[in-house]
Amino acid sequence: MFSGAQIALYPMSDDFVGIITGALTALDPHRERLRIETDDVTTLIVGPPPILFAAMRDLFVAAAGTGTHCVLSATVSRGCPGEPDDPICRPDPDAVPAGPLDARIEAALAAVDKAPETGQAAVGQFSLYPLGEGGHMDEIYGCIDFVKASAVFDRSKNFCTRLSGDAGAVFAALGEAFTRFGAPSGHVAMDVTVSANSPSRRA
Amino acid sequence: MFSGAQIALYPMSDDFVGIITGALTALDPHRERLRIETDDVTTLIVGPPPILFAAMRDLFVAAAGTGTHCVLSATVSRGCPGEPDDPICRPDPDAVPAGPLDARIEAALAAVDKAPETGQAAVGQFSLYPLGEGGHMDEIYGCIDFVKASAVFDRSKNFCTRLSGDAGAVFAALGEAFTRFGAPSGHVAMDVTVSANSPSRRA
Repeated sequence: MFSGAQIALYPMSDDFVGIITGALTALDPHRERLRIETDDVTTLIVGPPPILFAAMRDLFVAAAGTGTHCVLSATVSRGCPGEPDDPICRPDPDAVPAGPLDARIEAALAAVDKAPETGQAAVGQFSLYPLGEGGHMDEIYGCIDFVKASAVFDRSKNFCTRLSGDAGAVFAALGEAFTRFGAPSGHVAMDVTVSANSPSRRA
Repeated sequence: MFSGAQIALYPMSDDFVGIITGALTALDPHRERLRIETDDVTTLIVGPPPILFAAMRDLFVAAAGTGTHCVLSATVSRGCPGEPDDPICRPDPDAVPAGPLDARIEAALAAVDKAPETGQAAVGQFSLYPLGEGGHMDEIYGCIDFVKASAVFDRSKNFCTRLSGDAGAVFAALGEAFTRFGAPSGHVAMDVTVSANSPSRRA
């Protein structure tokens, strides 16, 4: 199964190039498990979902650690029928959706609970798109049930769900939402925005 | 049918607050047709799709006109079964997908051709998600056929399609892709990124 993400990091600073290039070293521990291609709009990272979310977390935390208002935006996808299979994308067999929703929700909650703490506060938003299957709203509602029961749930918004907390738990919740819901070998996409250090008053 | 978008504008500048607040006046001509709610991560705009895309275009062009590297990111949605119907969202009856793919592709191409020129160069990326229907890939491939035949097609990327050209034609193509493909009253989501003034060498 092909899985990967188109990601971008937006530091709201005159020194955005320096902040981005400085944060890129945070990807080093993951490079062996990823294929990475950059252009002037987004960077493609291809690899198994747990590595994708860990890499995005580490990149985001490195950039946000500068204190600058930073946003990471990503389009994450698995099982797209238009993409070739890639041997780099072997998912963790424990992380493939299987079994009843209740059990998957419990496993996802446990994974968020044991997420490593990063010390970086973050606000995240995501929309999950399980494609080409009947009952896609059941999987979306199951995913929302998980997120609402998790420690990082903030609130529901139109078209997306908002999370807040330590970046470690926020990215863990995003990764669980992506891997535990939708058909096991089906086409699932997720739209992700994570923000830190915003000067705006929290709504 | 409920339609709207969660949008965010990212000026890569120390003066990001000034650039954003300065660009907001570009929304004024559209405010009567939109409901707008802002928090610290994204701004919700609710209204009919043609107004949504015109408003995003005008906001983006106003910010990019400062010469700063700016990105507009949006999650656009119509027909989500989890959202209440809203009388502000009456779509243009001519813009609702109907009839065979070939005719829709032709109408979409004509609309891009007559898009107003803004004088602002832009690069756009999008992913289209027609949800909960059999044959979702047929609609995606139909939409890709339209985009490939349009003047703003740049190239296919993993998980998304890349456009480039005048911002007027780029946003017109995004709006046509969103309104002409997928089931007429079905649930369709679109993930959009539009960038201007990037210092990176074009890939």
